[in-house]
Amino acid sequence: MEQTAGGVTAAKGFMAAGVAAGVKYKDRKDMALIYSERPCMVAGVFTSNVVKAAPVLWDREIVSAGRDVHGVIVNAGIANACTGAQGYDYCHRTAAAAAAALGVSEDSILVASTGVIGMQLPMDKIVTGVSYLADLKAASIEAGDDAAHAIMTTDTVAKQVAVTVTLGGRTVTIGGMCKGSGMIHPNMCTMLGFVTTDVCMTKELLQEALSGDVQDTFNMISVDGDTSTNDTLLLLANGQAGNPIISSRGEDYAIFCEALHFVNETLAKKMAGDGEGATALFETKVVHAASKEEARILAKSVICSSLTKAAIFGHDANWGRILCALGYAGVNFDPEKIALYFTGKSGKILIYEGGKAADYSEEEAGKILSEPEVTVVVDMKMGEASASAWGCDLTYDYVKINADYRS
Amino acid sequence: MEQTAGGVTAAKGFMAAGVAAGVKYKDRKDMALIYSERPCMVAGVFTSNVVKAAPVLWDREIVSAGRDVHGVIVNAGIANACTGAQGYDYCHRTAAAAAAALGVSEDSILVASTGVIGMQLPMDKIVTGVSYLADLKAASIEAGDDAAHAIMTTDTVAKQVAVTVTLGGRTVTIGGMCKGSGMIHPNMCTMLGFVTTDVCMTKELLQEALSGDVQDTFNMISVDGDTSTNDTLLLLANGQAGNPIISSRGEDYAIFCEALHFVNETLAKKMAGDGEGATALFETKVVHAASKEEARILAKSVICSSLTKAAIFGHDANWGRILCALGYAGVNFDPEKIALYFTGKSGKILIYEGGKAADYSEEEAGKILSEPEVTVVVDMKMGEASASAWGCDLTYDYVKINADYRS
Repeated sequence: MEQTAGGVTAAKGFMAAGVAAGVKYKDRKDMALIYSERPCMVAGVFTSNVVKAAPVLWDREIVSAGRDVHGVIVNAGIANACTGAQGYDYCHRTAAAAAAALGVSEDSILVASTGVIGMQLPMDKIVTGVSYLADLKAASIEAGDDAAHAIMTTDTVAKQVAVTVTLGGRTVTIGGMCKGSGMIHPNMCTMLGFVTTDVCMTKELLQEALSGDVQDTFNMISVDGDTSTNDTLLLLANGQAGNPIISSRGEDYAIFCEALHFVNETLAKKMAGDGEGATALFETKVVHAASKEEARILAKSVICSSLTKAAIFGHDANWGRILCALGYAGVNFDPEKIALYFTGKSGKILIYEGGKAADYSEEEAGKILSEPEVTVVVDMKMGEASASAWGCDLTYDYVKINADYRS
Repeated sequence: MEQTAGGVTAAKGFMAAGVAAGVKYKDRKDMALIYSERPCMVAGVFTSNVVKAAPVLWDREIVSAGRDVHGVIVNAGIANACTGAQGYDYCHRTAAAAAAALGVSEDSILVASTGVIGMQLPMDKIVTGVSYLADLKAASIEAGDDAAHAIMTTDTVAKQVAVTVTLGGRTVTIGGMCKGSGMIHPNMCTMLGFVTTDVCMTKELLQEALSGDVQDTFNMISVDGDTSTNDTLLLLANGQAGNPIISSRGEDYAIFCEALHFVNETLAKKMAGDGEGATALFETKVVHAASKEEARILAKSVICSSLTKAAIFGHDANWGRILCALGYAGVNFDPEKIALYFTGKSGKILIYEGGKAADYSEEEAGKILSEPEVTVVVDMKMGEASASAWGCDLTYDYVKINADYRS
């Protein structure tokens, strides 16, 4: 596997565009298109929130019907959630406008929206935006970059990654982009994530690969514990790599899954590290847990703890809060047996063992906690399972951003 | 039922004291005693956190053995959690010192600690503090007030309440105090709560009354989602009211439970409203839910949502976040059928109905959201069950307090 430049346009046959349609933001790109002339199989995972945005309902219908698709239209600024029948109609009209501009059927266009809940889309601006997107679409890295910028809301950086693998002598590319900074606590997937690939593969295995991998990637991040109404992760595959079609769980499938995992984990970590107001990516790695499920639950409990997150912001080695978060996670263990470590570029130190504080240097701990990526390792000493979860620190800016988000 | 002055010393035969022992804080009271010469039955509920502080282990042993007690020693500043065998020994020695000073047996003294996790208690200061407490104890309202102040950590106000009811012609009093501001998300009970009563009642009914009531009171508040290692709620009954002993679930039991509920709910709301950094008490009242359990889950999900809490701080009627938090609570419902209202002293307004925003005035909504007590009413239109949960807004000061709590 090799990392390569770009995001959603890295794989063969995929084009993208981003334009400033003025949906809600001023003076910035806020609508994006991903397009493949050749029809794509699509796999998707969506929010588990009972309250689902109109585009989630639209996309879920297309994915579950197993229809081939040509592309995705995304807007930032307005979530088109809690907008009733009119909202669904607007979503439908967005797809129809894109279909007309691209010369494809409306049920081959997926839609995704992100932003404020409860507002209706300004359809005139959306329709104008769609026609510009159709004209501007290109297969370049720059076009993919435009799209990655256009889907941002409170994100501070665009989030993209791409890799290539060789399958049956042919180069297969997987590239993706995502956005998400607040209301991030995916339960089925992330806020908005789009991965494109030119792999040849059966539809069943494509969905299986995606659904399996989100458990260890997008579902293991949290910024604020709020599972969005709009969470959507789409994987489009147009088959243009020309590799021998993957139809069983053999070596090629394993190689593809490993590459997909790298793309998903990279995007997920970019989201966690760019959480609203965050100054640090905060990873919790649970090792030697009794089961994978327990490892996941424990890791996620720590990165979700407001008190721990505030301590990370303060570069304070307040490990009692970590132990507390492990304790209320819902997993049974003996606090006297486990060990905690802080790790970073400046080293790894033992913090807690044998039921009490280890003999560590507060200065050394503070140094590790001041790095932009902080990792806590929890050694459960119970078994062989491990899991990682990613979050961020809790800062003044998180409060600032969310106390006046709508204004 | 009538409200009366004071807290833990309101009921007959209870004394209290608070002193500045210098456990960790400077120039303020940080140790408290509750004492009854006449032995008390005790009911208790404790944290469900796997990681339990030493005093939780000590008290649980006494409560589950059904021993009568004479009092409680409390210290603030150090939690005596994650302190190993030494921490348990220090807890034991605290009880023993109090027992010696008061002339009672050491297993008749309960212990509670709150503060930083992982530090050992300074036993010399604790022992000195205990002897002062034993000398200073008094049955006055002032002595109860001293105790209520001595148990505070990041609390900004002392929290007390007392009521009287008449049972069999005799006045029965229930009074309590509690502390809690951060790491508040009780799962069995609150951070630290102490309720005293002179009622005559069987031990079984006393525990049943307490365990039942916490489900609707202390377990329905949250400041930050972090379930403490020290959560303890103790109810001491010395029988000095002389009422006909309550030994069945009859009318007297119902009257007592109603009074206990008032005391518990009042204390719980005081904690939520005084959450770390909070500027407002934030109540969510779910009505017409399909079941009590679902009503509780929905109400608690809303008051725990970081995004909703930040919006309350910003006086922003961002109701989409409330709907989102209802949606990920784990309860199935039709978002098109429910209705949301904001209520406060300045009125009640419909915010959301029929799947979309109601036609409300943002100005009027902002006015309600600027009050010190904000209530969201969620009408599920599914059944007859209801529940309330209490939290607070998420503010800059929450981050400030917790980014440098140990320093």
